[in-house]
Amino acid sequence: MADKIKIFSPATVANVGCGYDVLGFALNGIGEEMEVSKRDDGKLVIDEIIGFDLPKDAAVNTATVAARALLDAAGSKQGFSFTIKKTINPGSGMGTSASSSAGGVFAVNELLGRPYTPAQLVVFAMEGEKAVSKKAHADNVAPNLLGGFTLVRSYEPLDILSLPVPEDLFVTIVHPQVEVKTTDAKKILKKQVDLTTAVQQWGNVGGLVSGLYESDYDLIGRSMVDVIVEPIRKILIPLYDEVKTQSIADGALGCSIAGSGPSIFTFSNGEETAHQIKSMMQTKYDEVGILAYTYMSKIGKEGVRVI
Amino acid sequence: MADKIKIFSPATVANVGCGYDVLGFALNGIGEEMEVSKRDDGKLVIDEIIGFDLPKDAAVNTATVAARALLDAAGSKQGFSFTIKKTINPGSGMGTSASSSAGGVFAVNELLGRPYTPAQLVVFAMEGEKAVSKKAHADNVAPNLLGGFTLVRSYEPLDILSLPVPEDLFVTIVHPQVEVKTTDAKKILKKQVDLTTAVQQWGNVGGLVSGLYESDYDLIGRSMVDVIVEPIRKILIPLYDEVKTQSIADGALGCSIAGSGPSIFTFSNGEETAHQIKSMMQTKYDEVGILAYTYMSKIGKEGVRVI
Repeated sequence: MADKIKIFSPATVANVGCGYDVLGFALNGIGEEMEVSKRDDGKLVIDEIIGFDLPKDAAVNTATVAARALLDAAGSKQGFSFTIKKTINPGSGMGTSASSSAGGVFAVNELLGRPYTPAQLVVFAMEGEKAVSKKAHADNVAPNLLGGFTLVRSYEPLDILSLPVPEDLFVTIVHPQVEVKTTDAKKILKKQVDLTTAVQQWGNVGGLVSGLYESDYDLIGRSMVDVIVEPIRKILIPLYDEVKTQSIADGALGCSIAGSGPSIFTFSNGEETAHQIKSMMQTKYDEVGILAYTYMSKIGKEGVRVI
Repeated sequence: MADKIKIFSPATVANVGCGYDVLGFALNGIGEEMEVSKRDDGKLVIDEIIGFDLPKDAAVNTATVAARALLDAAGSKQGFSFTIKKTINPGSGMGTSASSSAGGVFAVNELLGRPYTPAQLVVFAMEGEKAVSKKAHADNVAPNLLGGFTLVRSYEPLDILSLPVPEDLFVTIVHPQVEVKTTDAKKILKKQVDLTTAVQQWGNVGGLVSGLYESDYDLIGRSMVDVIVEPIRKILIPLYDEVKTQSIADGALGCSIAGSGPSIFTFSNGEETAHQIKSMMQTKYDEVGILAYTYMSKIGKEGVRVI
């Protein structure tokens, strides 16, 4: 068994328009790296976080909180050192805390000789999510650990489904540098919704799932309608309506908020459209002087992995 | 072009647990027959309704209301006579009004030389539904006209999807003879639902759609959870909890209310279990002296058709 491992943990996008709290997918090649090695003193220690100023306290960082949950469940006293290389600003809506949560449990599980399956790791990674957002969400860590497109059908009991990923489905993301904390983004949501509105939302969830199975790109686009969360949260995101309207005009299948924002994502059928939209997004924010990072990838069929 | 036609229009089950107002499926061989013939005076006339005492007024009966919507859209002055043979009591939750709505437009469309596709007929059939339930629902007429399992993704614009039907999925239905009017069953629903409850519901809709694509019978069963409508409507249905509990104990994949009730339906993997549940249901109501009719069939891949 190795004493040391280097892993890549992808960024993820939860909600996906209609699927608030249940749908999510992994990006391909966009995410963070983590080096994890065994240590003899039984402690979890974060040696270094490269890229951004994040807590190195092992009782706070999602990577080590999640790893601790796994170790406790396994009854293991093994210690580990972590070096985490972040590439995406925190508070993006691209599941950066989940990348660390999932990365931490994945690496530790590998170094322990894989006592748990990827699906079983979800529960431990959720403990990392709980540390930052108060609720143990699975909609980011599930695609992170399982790859591709996932649906959290139920939390009690936890039931996570892997959905098919159409071959030419490309994602473009823009992350304007305004911070929206998940906890704040949750607070502004209404606790109650109209039944008629909820019906529209679950019609679209059904449509999106069907679109993924059928590789029906237009149906995927038509179903990316969020009548509940988007109308409220978009007010926190500068240029949201403008970017969405132009994305659709430029050929995007659909456009919505990545996770709890402020990142905006689109789906496109094919790389060329996705590329064009990336440029457009960058230009829009450059024009008004808001720093913004743009990303483009296929949906990542593989989740967190050894590199 | 024929002057006369005889058709079979299946019974249908809407809602299907989690999919209130969006999901529905057709039954196989259970439904009503209709004979429709051209007449020269431009009128729509119901000559006879066999089986139950229903309105013969062409301005009221769903078959002729729906047929009139089609004729108006087509600009046709053709008249038709209808004889309708009902086999299921009205107010069952098995889409009997929809059977007439869909049957009426299907028959007239055939006799006019098929100016409209089955998907286009849905809009006209919805006018029949509107006549009885005040809202132009599509969740029964869609599976009636298209067959199989359907999802009304959206009403504006109308977007109806056909979902796959697993080969061994059997339906058992019991219709206890207590009348629940759709309009009354709608009135008792809360107009607002908790967001967290709505999230559970759309997780299940996604799961059910996935289960149909995967022919994953257990997933179909796990997803047939209705946390919004069932808890309220089931109080209108005598023995509901008892029948549900026993159905699951007897091997049903899941159990829920058919449409707005009072019929209860179960899914089973295979005919034997479905049969056993049918007997159990009959016995339950016989024991307490409530007249009840029971039905069993596969999901009807074909919708309304010429016989």
